[in-house]
Amino acid sequence: MRHYASSQVVEIRGKLFMIDCGEGTQMQLRRSKIRFTKIQAVFISHLHGDHCFGLIGMISTFGMLGRVATLHVYAPAELGEILQNQINFFCQGLEFKVEFHSVDTTKKAVVYEDRSLIVETIPLQHRVPTCGYLFREKEGSRHIDREMMNCYNIPISQINNIKEGADWTDQDGKIIPNEKLTKPADKARSYAYCSDTKYIPNLYKSLENVDMLYHESTYAKDNESRANLYYHSTAEQAAHVAKAAGVGKLLLGHFSARYEDESCLLDEAKSIFANSFLTNEGMVFDV
Amino acid sequence: MRHYASSQVVEIRGKLFMIDCGEGTQMQLRRSKIRFTKIQAVFISHLHGDHCFGLIGMISTFGMLGRVATLHVYAPAELGEILQNQINFFCQGLEFKVEFHSVDTTKKAVVYEDRSLIVETIPLQHRVPTCGYLFREKEGSRHIDREMMNCYNIPISQINNIKEGADWTDQDGKIIPNEKLTKPADKARSYAYCSDTKYIPNLYKSLENVDMLYHESTYAKDNESRANLYYHSTAEQAAHVAKAAGVGKLLLGHFSARYEDESCLLDEAKSIFANSFLTNEGMVFDV
Repeated sequence: MRHYASSQVVEIRGKLFMIDCGEGTQMQLRRSKIRFTKIQAVFISHLHGDHCFGLIGMISTFGMLGRVATLHVYAPAELGEILQNQINFFCQGLEFKVEFHSVDTTKKAVVYEDRSLIVETIPLQHRVPTCGYLFREKEGSRHIDREMMNCYNIPISQINNIKEGADWTDQDGKIIPNEKLTKPADKARSYAYCSDTKYIPNLYKSLENVDMLYHESTYAKDNESRANLYYHSTAEQAAHVAKAAGVGKLLLGHFSARYEDESCLLDEAKSIFANSFLTNEGMVFDV
Repeated sequence: MRHYASSQVVEIRGKLFMIDCGEGTQMQLRRSKIRFTKIQAVFISHLHGDHCFGLIGMISTFGMLGRVATLHVYAPAELGEILQNQINFFCQGLEFKVEFHSVDTTKKAVVYEDRSLIVETIPLQHRVPTCGYLFREKEGSRHIDREMMNCYNIPISQINNIKEGADWTDQDGKIIPNEKLTKPADKARSYAYCSDTKYIPNLYKSLENVDMLYHESTYAKDNESRANLYYHSTAEQAAHVAKAAGVGKLLLGHFSARYEDESCLLDEAKSIFANSFLTNEGMVFDV
């Protein structure tokens, strides 16, 4: 899981998804090792420039690199027309489709689903309509235990059935339960992205037990009233959300430029929720 | 004079002007020492993303930094509506005006003039309507020679007249010619920006004796046919223009990503026109 100033790339079982796309995102990606042309979908939290001005540049570059796979964009409705006008003018002859999906930021809803992943909106409170996104892996199949398969002489043709949970009946009619032939599936992981938002005391209800939470923390607590005024959060408030939700790990980000050294933000968060981390340009986190 | 990947800032007698504004320009400027909020006008050569996608982000940032001075944008007409739509949506409550000036890329014309500077378009040939820009300082006033002023006892009230060229008549009625009281004005400098363009053999006629010429050189000569196909130039072609125009200095730029080391481009240019230089991110050139 990779984080940038105002764009993040989430990698799940080899698939790449982007959350937000501020100006300069494509330059950052070119410098990184991410195969960014593989990005399938972009989820935009809100229509402030630092979260979406990089989209047209990235789409235009995808075009020049010969992309053919459809790119899905999930964002508040107003971006649809603006983006389409830009594409019509700047990206003539684009050889892939940009499919726009309008997102209702006011309610929790599944906006994307495939075999292995569900993405849900998380309503947030900012100066314009804003939502976060919750990525939840689906439970995977159990892993075949090769030794046991050999031991019971089970033919390869049966592997898929057994992965899906079937038991095995041997030549003597004895039933070997699936648990003896397989090992547990990988734990399904989850990641929540909450930016930008003021402090929402009951936000934790949407985030219970997620493995990793990114929550904006624009200010330290001496600027709590400013945070309130501009619909941003303090590091302490982010930590309160993390603690109430019982998340595994809290990532802090979207720091005000006034903080040359963000360690005060980290300290304030850690005093509430110990497993807190600062994020910065180019950082990579595993869930 | 400062150069970026797809944006340049020209400083003339304390005033700042920008030419082109690709994505990420504002980030580069923040890293530099340029007081970029002072930029008065932006001149866009053509409407390809790498030359104009950074404009809306810079305008939006100017707004957040509390700019009140009008920003003038000179560009091909179609940008007017696209930019205004973006400003209407993303920059509500902007406290400065963005004044759009549509530029005819097909002919040479003065598009900007003030007390000390004239900016002219230079028609170029690229895949979309494109023009370069020629910055010419006006001849300044001559400099007062303090010693001679004292020697002839000339009152301070006369300084402006003498700067503007007046002679002085002393108490005995003797005329002291202006040349004795002043030193020559600074040489009026000129800078021409030509990007993107295919090779135009008679382009030199618009560029005669400019002090510094920036001419794109996307390719080396082994790719001359590709340059032709995509309406770009080789380094050698840029140097031919510089030589025919008798410019002072040639700056090369807009290199294809295929060249890891651009010294082959420089060598090819120098074989035609010795006073050639490579440009790169963040470089500063004096005219």
